Amino acid sequence: MEEIKINMIERPELKKTILIEGLPGIGLVGKLAGDHLKDELKAVKFAELTSTYLPPQVSIQDDGTVKLVNMEMYYWKGKENDIILLLGDFQGLTPESQYYIADRILDFGKDYDLRRLYTLGGLGTGAITHTPRVFGAATSKNLVSELEEYGIVFKGGGAIFGASGLLLGLSIPRKIEAVCLMGETHGQIIDAKSAEAVLQILTKILGVEVNMNELKKKARQTEDQINKMSQMIDTHRKSVERQQELLDENPFYIR
Amino acid sequence: MEEIKINMIERPELKKTILIEGLPGIGLVGKLAGDHLKDELKAVKFAELTSTYLPPQVSIQDDGTVKLVNMEMYYWKGKENDIILLLGDFQGLTPESQYYIADRILDFGKDYDLRRLYTLGGLGTGAITHTPRVFGAATSKNLVSELEEYGIVFKGGGAIFGASGLLLGLSIPRKIEAVCLMGETHGQIIDAKSAEAVLQILTKILGVEVNMNELKKKARQTEDQINKMSQMIDTHRKSVERQQELLDENPFYIR
Amino acid sequence: MEEIKINMIERPELKKTILIEGLPGIGLVGKLAGDHLKDELKAVKFAELTSTYLPPQVSIQDDGTVKLVNMEMYYWKGKENDIILLLGDFQGLTPESQYYIADRILDFGKDYDLRRLYTLGGLGTGAITHTPRVFGAATSKNLVSELEEYGIVFKGGGAIFGASGLLLGLSIPRKIEAVCLMGETHGQIIDAKSAEAVLQILTKILGVEVNMNELKKKARQTEDQINKMSQMIDTHRKSVERQQELLDENPFYIR
Amino acid sequence: MEEIKINMIERPELKKTILIEGLPGIGLVGKLAGDHLKDELKAVKFAELTSTYLPPQVSIQDDGTVKLVNMEMYYWKGKENDIILLLGDFQGLTPESQYYIADRILDFGKDYDLRRLYTLGGLGTGAITHTPRVFGAATSKNLVSELEEYGIVFKGGGAIFGASGLLLGLSIPRKIEAVCLMGETHGQIIDAKSAEAVLQILTKILGVEVNMNELKKKARQTEDQINKMSQMIDTHRKSVERQQELLDENPFYIR
Repeated sequence: MEEIKINMIERPELKKTILIEGLPGIGLVGKLAGDHLKDELKAVKFAELTSTYLPPQVSIQDDGTVKLVNMEMYYWKGKENDIILLLGDFQGLTPESQYYIADRILDFGKDYDLRRLYTLGGLGTGAITHTPRVFGAATSKNLVSELEEYGIVFKGGGAIFGASGLLLGLSIPRKIEAVCLMGETHGQIIDAKSAEAVLQILTKILGVEVNMNELKKKARQTEDQINKMSQMIDTHRKSVERQQELLDENPFYIR
Repeated sequence: MEEIKINMIERPELKKTILIEGLPGIGLVGKLAGDHLKDELKAVKFAELTSTYLPPQVSIQDDGTVKLVNMEMYYWKGKENDIILLLGDFQGLTPESQYYIADRILDFGKDYDLRRLYTLGGLGTGAITHTPRVFGAATSKNLVSELEEYGIVFKGGGAIFGASGLLLGLSIPRKIEAVCLMGETHGQIIDAKSAEAVLQILTKILGVEVNMNELKKKARQTEDQINKMSQMIDTHRKSVERQQELLDENPFYIR
Repeated sequence: MEEIKINMIERPELKKTILIEGLPGIGLVGKLAGDHLKDELKAVKFAELTSTYLPPQVSIQDDGTVKLVNMEMYYWKGKENDIILLLGDFQGLTPESQYYIADRILDFGKDYDLRRLYTLGGLGTGAITHTPRVFGAATSKNLVSELEEYGIVFKGGGAIFGASGLLLGLSIPRKIEAVCLMGETHGQIIDAKSAEAVLQILTKILGVEVNMNELKKKARQTEDQINKMSQMIDTHRKSVERQQELLDENPFYIR
Repeated sequence: MEEIKINMIERPELKKTILIEGLPGIGLVGKLAGDHLKDELKAVKFAELTSTYLPPQVSIQDDGTVKLVNMEMYYWKGKENDIILLLGDFQGLTPESQYYIADRILDFGKDYDLRRLYTLGGLGTGAITHTPRVFGAATSKNLVSELEEYGIVFKGGGAIFGASGLLLGLSIPRKIEAVCLMGETHGQIIDAKSAEAVLQILTKILGVEVNMNELKKKARQTEDQINKMSQMIDTHRKSVERQQELLDENPFYIR
């Protein structure tokens, strides 16, 4: 059984492609932004990635049928650039699998004239803000200069974990330009407002127009669900902390 | 050493075979139902699966001899359909091994004219019920329609973990029809009553008659043992929760 | 890098060999018994097993030099049977590695006319006993009958974890006779008395004479060290419990 | 994707090379000493090791660009011996990966006429000392004798975990001389003073002169940062304890 398998639904021809990653993470910022962009662009699903590195489970859909856990790739044809969106409900369960999946995604991109990557996420500050900033990190100084013009804040320090980080790190030896956009967020709530901030800047960069109404609605719906989901959020927070601890601790594994 | 090894005891010829999975899970519902069906049908053991993914232990049997931890396959020849039962005391210890084992079981089924899969489990509600319903999830809408006629409740939401879920998820690309039947159960007790409810519906679907007396007795015996086993049950519950947490948390591993 | 590597120091010719495993476990019973037998027989080290599955560490020896963590094989030439002793300070760290190491040991035995295996351990009862019994489990009923004559108690129920269990379980398909001898022990103390009980019976079976004085001394020395080691013992106990929990829980991983 | 990849920046010709490992560990002693030596010698980075065994993350640098987690190799050309420094912010996350990485480093050394290894670390005593001693462990008695002359304390007992230990253990079969120098340290603080003690002796052995002013400053800077980092240190301490427990416990995994 292959550890990572990509099933092609359609084989589109894409040019000057920009890959945008919106997998779950802090505040679900990246996932909310990515899913909304997919909905508004009416992007088309063309590939599914399943993996033994994802949780061993199926989700039950509204019609009673099941879906194996996966990541999904959508495409959208633009004027200057075509877009691939990488979306999903999960990331790889183990540190090693994070590398394998990110590497596989970049291999996948080779067939689609990949020019640039944007990975979307949240930057947890522990504070509530009403006008979330968007922080950035990039694979080159040129990219930093280019993107600072959009009001993205670049500052040193900290780390980016998982797909949002590795897709950048593994792009460097492949000489692919890649940027991580991180919406300022509390860290313990699902933050559609932060996702909107990220999307406002991303769409300006991409030169596409996206109606934010649904995202605003989602934000409200989400808040209604927050009570129900509060336990999940707490679990989420602890998980992030624990993972962070794991990473912080292990360097000191030794004397 | 092979990670998964299937040792054939007998090589029966089976036709239009239905595979039924009854491995341990919530409330032990699937295992109780599967084991009882095996006993009543006097199904014949014909294969054993051992694996480095199962716990590294032997159990001590009543005669003082040991048995390596395994999964066992039994067959029963019916009028219209032959049946394979997949039973055991354990599932794969790691997420990845769950995939490998489920995949291997489906490969195994290829040699036996496999037509359909039923995976059996419990749906934990946290509430005590005296008339447990049977919930379902299936690989196609046709199956959902067909099985709703038996009073199985199909509704969206939630997930199915481990073999009961993956055997469905991995059946989809193989174009095998597969259904999970889940008995409504508290989640923290070993629930033979829920197993009986699952079996009542399953035997109706299969067109076989099975005496439930022994299962009822088992339920009583089991309850006698509950005090002794309460610690184990608690452990079980925590494990399920922890595993669920693990799965819930890991998607958010990242920002 | 090989996951398991056996380095030969000497290549003895052995006949009708009996392999005795004395790796650490509950009460350190098996290790105490095995180490003492090695000392008294003046058995000769002839092979070392190192593995990526063992802890990533070296121990510092009295002369200031280091030794990579390993398992060691010793031989002793007897009248009727030659003996191989498998000793060490650690077992494989992961469930899977337990399988790989046990399998490799049995492969290793092939070159030495292996006739029978004895694995040594403790059976934790949670109670202090002054006349510890020796419990057994074996790969065949014949063996059970043969060994009951020595006063070994065979009774069903329970499980044997790790090397002591897997060496039995993996011996069955290889048609090697194997027995586990378990000294009754509290479970939370290092129990040289229990080790002595095991060794009394084992030496009778083997037809060798072994002076127990040093083992008795060790028992006293050990007790002197118990204060110092109490934390370790507690850790040990928790580990055994946790491992047991892990094994107990995982079967229920799923619904 | 390769599990361990070494990217060559430059291919220096080195002779009679001494490899010095300064990866993070107890008190960060080894890392502080290694980094300072690199800075003072103005050693040149010539290779980077990236690995799926390292944390799945990138760090954000001061200019807003990212760097994939790695280990770095620096060289310095001396009169008698050339030096390679192995530095980094992390060690392998799993026990097995510790073996693979150490083995790969030793393979790497083959191309550089490797004559001796020094691994640097801390020895946690739980006590504050103002004149930290330097403890040693070596691969041969000759080395012990040679190094005792420098005031290094060799005494038996204890273990050396991770790269500092495995680089020694895996050097033995390769017949490479290797020594671990451990600065006496509390264990719960970042200890530049202990690093200085290690470096005083190491530079004497190497016959190089190194200005310690910057290290002393770092010690003060570090102490200023200690409040900020206290949580991290605590995490570090717990991690070391937990890892130690893991290693201590697992031997007793079994009965």
